[in-house]
Amino acid sequence: MTQHFSFDLGVTDGGARTGLIRTPRGDIRTPAFMPVGTAATVKAMLPGSVRATGANVLLGNTYHLMLRPTAERIDRLGGLHRFMNWDRPILTDSGGFQVMSLGELRKVDSDGVTFKSHIDGSKHRLTPERSIEIQRLLGSDIVMCFDECPALPADRDRIATSMRLSMDWAERSRAAFGDRPGHALFGIQQGGLDLDLRAESAERLRAIGFDGYAIGGLAVGEGQAAMFDCLDVAPGQLPQDRPRYLMGVGKPDDIVGAVARGVDMMDCVLPSRSGRTGQAWTRRGQVNLRNARHADDPRPLDETCTCPACTGFSRAYLHHVVRAQEIIGSMLLTWHNLQYYQDLMAGMREAIGAGRFATWQKSFHATRAEGDIEPI
Amino acid sequence: MTQHFSFDLGVTDGGARTGLIRTPRGDIRTPAFMPVGTAATVKAMLPGSVRATGANVLLGNTYHLMLRPTAERIDRLGGLHRFMNWDRPILTDSGGFQVMSLGELRKVDSDGVTFKSHIDGSKHRLTPERSIEIQRLLGSDIVMCFDECPALPADRDRIATSMRLSMDWAERSRAAFGDRPGHALFGIQQGGLDLDLRAESAERLRAIGFDGYAIGGLAVGEGQAAMFDCLDVAPGQLPQDRPRYLMGVGKPDDIVGAVARGVDMMDCVLPSRSGRTGQAWTRRGQVNLRNARHADDPRPLDETCTCPACTGFSRAYLHHVVRAQEIIGSMLLTWHNLQYYQDLMAGMREAIGAGRFATWQKSFHATRAEGDIEPI
Ligand SMILES: [Zn+2]
Ligand SMILES: [Zn+2]
Repeated sequence: MTQHFSFDLGVTDGGARTGLIRTPRGDIRTPAFMPVGTAATVKAMLPGSVRATGANVLLGNTYHLMLRPTAERIDRLGGLHRFMNWDRPILTDSGGFQVMSLGELRKVDSDGVTFKSHIDGSKHRLTPERSIEIQRLLGSDIVMCFDECPALPADRDRIATSMRLSMDWAERSRAAFGDRPGHALFGIQQGGLDLDLRAESAERLRAIGFDGYAIGGLAVGEGQAAMFDCLDVAPGQLPQDRPRYLMGVGKPDDIVGAVARGVDMMDCVLPSRSGRTGQAWTRRGQVNLRNARHADDPRPLDETCTCPACTGFSRAYLHHVVRAQEIIGSMLLTWHNLQYYQDLMAGMREAIGAGRFATWQKSFHATRAEGDIEPI
Repeated sequence: MTQHFSFDLGVTDGGARTGLIRTPRGDIRTPAFMPVGTAATVKAMLPGSVRATGANVLLGNTYHLMLRPTAERIDRLGGLHRFMNWDRPILTDSGGFQVMSLGELRKVDSDGVTFKSHIDGSKHRLTPERSIEIQRLLGSDIVMCFDECPALPADRDRIATSMRLSMDWAERSRAAFGDRPGHALFGIQQGGLDLDLRAESAERLRAIGFDGYAIGGLAVGEGQAAMFDCLDVAPGQLPQDRPRYLMGVGKPDDIVGAVARGVDMMDCVLPSRSGRTGQAWTRRGQVNLRNARHADDPRPLDETCTCPACTGFSRAYLHHVVRAQEIIGSMLLTWHNLQYYQDLMAGMREAIGAGRFATWQKSFHATRAEGDIEPI
């Protein structure tokens, strides 16, 4: 097994590409979807089950873990991998995004952010140096630069100022990270929907030099069309020979559109969060298992899916346990959704590798357009 | 595989005994503990995981299933086994106990009970005939007679009247059940703590004739000493050559004491319910994972346990996920508790079979008396 982090670009098919990230903890075939393990658990899943869906990298949230159980405690316990019983790669975010969305009474200055915990109101501070230190304590394989995320809506000046501050912080993150063989540091492109700001950001990042490049500040309410317009350009502003990671995306069609535009990695809470509210994602679109139409339906959610929800249970059962708020409802639908997302990625990797991604995309959209199977 | 329900008494060691229940859906080695699958799920467990703990029979609740999703719906969907993806034996209770504990505005007459659903206030009626019909629709392998459960505290007259009504209902249950090869009907002895009433109840049941005999009306707040006093006599009032099932018991030491007194089967929500509140049961007694003493403890909950909670995670992790109210906390601790209960039963079966149950009991109590491992 390799002692170094590396990325080999594989096949390119239109804008889409396959690749292989190698790390001492295992390989990541791209395009890759990373399930989110916010608080050292992919909610409602055992780690072996996450692995069984085909996931080979998880995302952990610095913000949540620094508050509870704390990075120092996880470090004393042997790191996040051992703590959560996941021995494959883990990417950690920097905490910046969640400080803005969850932290209370936050104050940003040029050095960092002070905020209060949403759990117990305790006061905390994150700076680029502290974020990188936390991610090191966690034992993260892929570390993200600490960036500032402006509250939306924001005008161009605010986005430009924020992006430039984030680029200063990217430089400090790079310095703080130092040289850690086998571990990677990713920079994060900002600039909102403004392609000139995105270009400026990309240039700053390339000048610093990172192991991979994330596209930040999208999937924050701008809509798919605006996001795709930005993605028509943004990935090409980043180095060809490094992985490109689109943060916080998304729905299945967002993911397919992003891959078509040259994105290699994504993460999103959607499949797991949906699973806890009775929502399933299938080849045919979204299915709400709470709906009474499923109450007497003996058919599986998706007869082609290999997950336990689809191979062991009827829609009627899933409907029953979702309605009765039984934990198994969250367990089964989360598993199914994560399985669907991993199958989606595997399908895209195969199609790109075979040079038939355009055909695959047509089929993907056609099947979704059919909608769910007719009620029984 | 057998087409009939049968019970073979195995080895007797003091009051304790081993046995083998055979059913068309699989064998049940006794003494047996039955996990409770109230609403067609053992909460927080997949059926394959329940099976992996060694459980070979589940309990389903007529009261819950008749209200949601209804017995008729489960029947249309192919029965409870297929519905919940559990192909081994299922014992169903009659609904009588839960009507009293959960139903609202209940009215008992000599024919049956009318009550309102705790879920939506809808009005329902249970009689011996309807309870047996529901259990048939569910596809239950071991059906329980419908009985009346007096609210406690109750004086001797009330308990006697209730017992005699339940014996009338046992006769009606027997008639309603008819002849169903491969399925069993169990009578339920009542009479509270009064051994004369218990003797009268046992005589009535033996005269009717059942495939097995339950001891009802215990574990309802009388305390372990009073329950054991009753169990010193009650099992001996029932036929030697039929399984004896003590309903709703209990804590590990209750279970051991009951087995020592000749009980073959038990069920209880305790291991699964405890698991959802951060409570674990181990050889050394009860462990509260919420307690801060576990926050930095890298040791497993029980180093001799083979469950995923103990083989994959530290006490510190379990503490973290319980505190953070993560679903995986319920999943892991439920699994552990069910594993511990099944290991307990397997240990007793082995000890009884080897004629050393008294020694085993001493060791069981000695290990518990040591208490949990010292804090780190
Ligand atoms: Zn599925
Ligand atoms: Zn265990």
